[in-house]
Amino acid sequence: MNFLEERIIKDGIVKEGNVLKVDSFLNHQMDIALIEEIGREFKRRFADKNVTKVLTIEASGIGIAAFVAKEFGVPMVFAKKSKSLNIAGEMYEAEVESFTHKNKNKVIVSKRFLNENDRLLIIDDFLANGCALQGLISIAQEAGAKIEGLGIVIEKGFQYGGQAIRNMGYQLESLAIVESMDAEKGTIVFREQ
Amino acid sequence: MNFLEERIIKDGIVKEGNVLKVDSFLNHQMDIALIEEIGREFKRRFADKNVTKVLTIEASGIGIAAFVAKEFGVPMVFAKKSKSLNIAGEMYEAEVESFTHKNKNKVIVSKRFLNENDRLLIIDDFLANGCALQGLISIAQEAGAKIEGLGIVIEKGFQYGGQAIRNMGYQLESLAIVESMDAEKGTIVFREQ
Repeated sequence: MNFLEERIIKDGIVKEGNVLKVDSFLNHQMDIALIEEIGREFKRRFADKNVTKVLTIEASGIGIAAFVAKEFGVPMVFAKKSKSLNIAGEMYEAEVESFTHKNKNKVIVSKRFLNENDRLLIIDDFLANGCALQGLISIAQEAGAKIEGLGIVIEKGFQYGGQAIRNMGYQLESLAIVESMDAEKGTIVFREQ
Repeated sequence: MNFLEERIIKDGIVKEGNVLKVDSFLNHQMDIALIEEIGREFKRRFADKNVTKVLTIEASGIGIAAFVAKEFGVPMVFAKKSKSLNIAGEMYEAEVESFTHKNKNKVIVSKRFLNENDRLLIIDDFLANGCALQGLISIAQEAGAKIEGLGIVIEKGFQYGGQAIRNMGYQLESLAIVESMDAEKGTIVFREQ
């Protein structure tokens, strides 16, 4: 097990309905030393890539993506959830469905911050059905930017999101892939990587 | 002028209606080297405080608060905007009105991550009418935590939020306080600190 899998076993809580709560260290309270280690691990996994910008989506991706961007020495851009009408042409837009909240959000990135010269590393905390990542990929494509890779902290390997994105030909690195969870026993099985 | 005021003069955009856009380096695209410097500056200003946790609110506070927490070597907790019903008793709650979006959000923090032993540094990117900070103060008080201080990146000094919080007796440090802006001329006047 790597450092993240060990931490999930130690502090993650498995709930009914395939819910894995990691809010004590990742996406509500953040253990900054762990987040820094996550940043270094993504740098290691994408060391050969010429990344010019890290792209993520609010809210829980931001803290992680910031430390990844620090490792690469590049700016970070986060897509915003928007309910407001935006002036046509100013923003890249995508629609994203939330697994957790069972709603749809329009997410936007200003055209001033992404263009065809960018080589992106896309970062998020969770990958389940892949809607958030698909939204970010769509925005990157609209911008004409090159996607160098995608980095996820925790992937739910029993949902189809990760496979769909790997099938598109992208290098998708998930630091922990959960194969199965048992809420009653509190057990988690990770995919061997 | 300090490093942040210089950056605001260089890259900030003044718009009609007292809007200051800093989305090219602070709250949409983030210049990570600048954010690190902001973290170090808050550490310097609150060096004598025994901070056990940094508290902020999603979304644009997260990246900044993460680097402040790194400087103090403590965890960071971010209050979440919530539309869902929460199980009574599990969460601290406050209602926050957004100046930018003209709507109200309920913000929540799990009771597992704040308690009467915590000594908090509250961090946010902007302070205008102070609603977000008042919400975080209310949550801290509900938890019985001590507030060691509040750190803001940009305060709009011509709105009443900052004065109200200083009148409550808190140490509020704003790295830049805008006294006035002129959208037509594109000028910004900062308060001497």
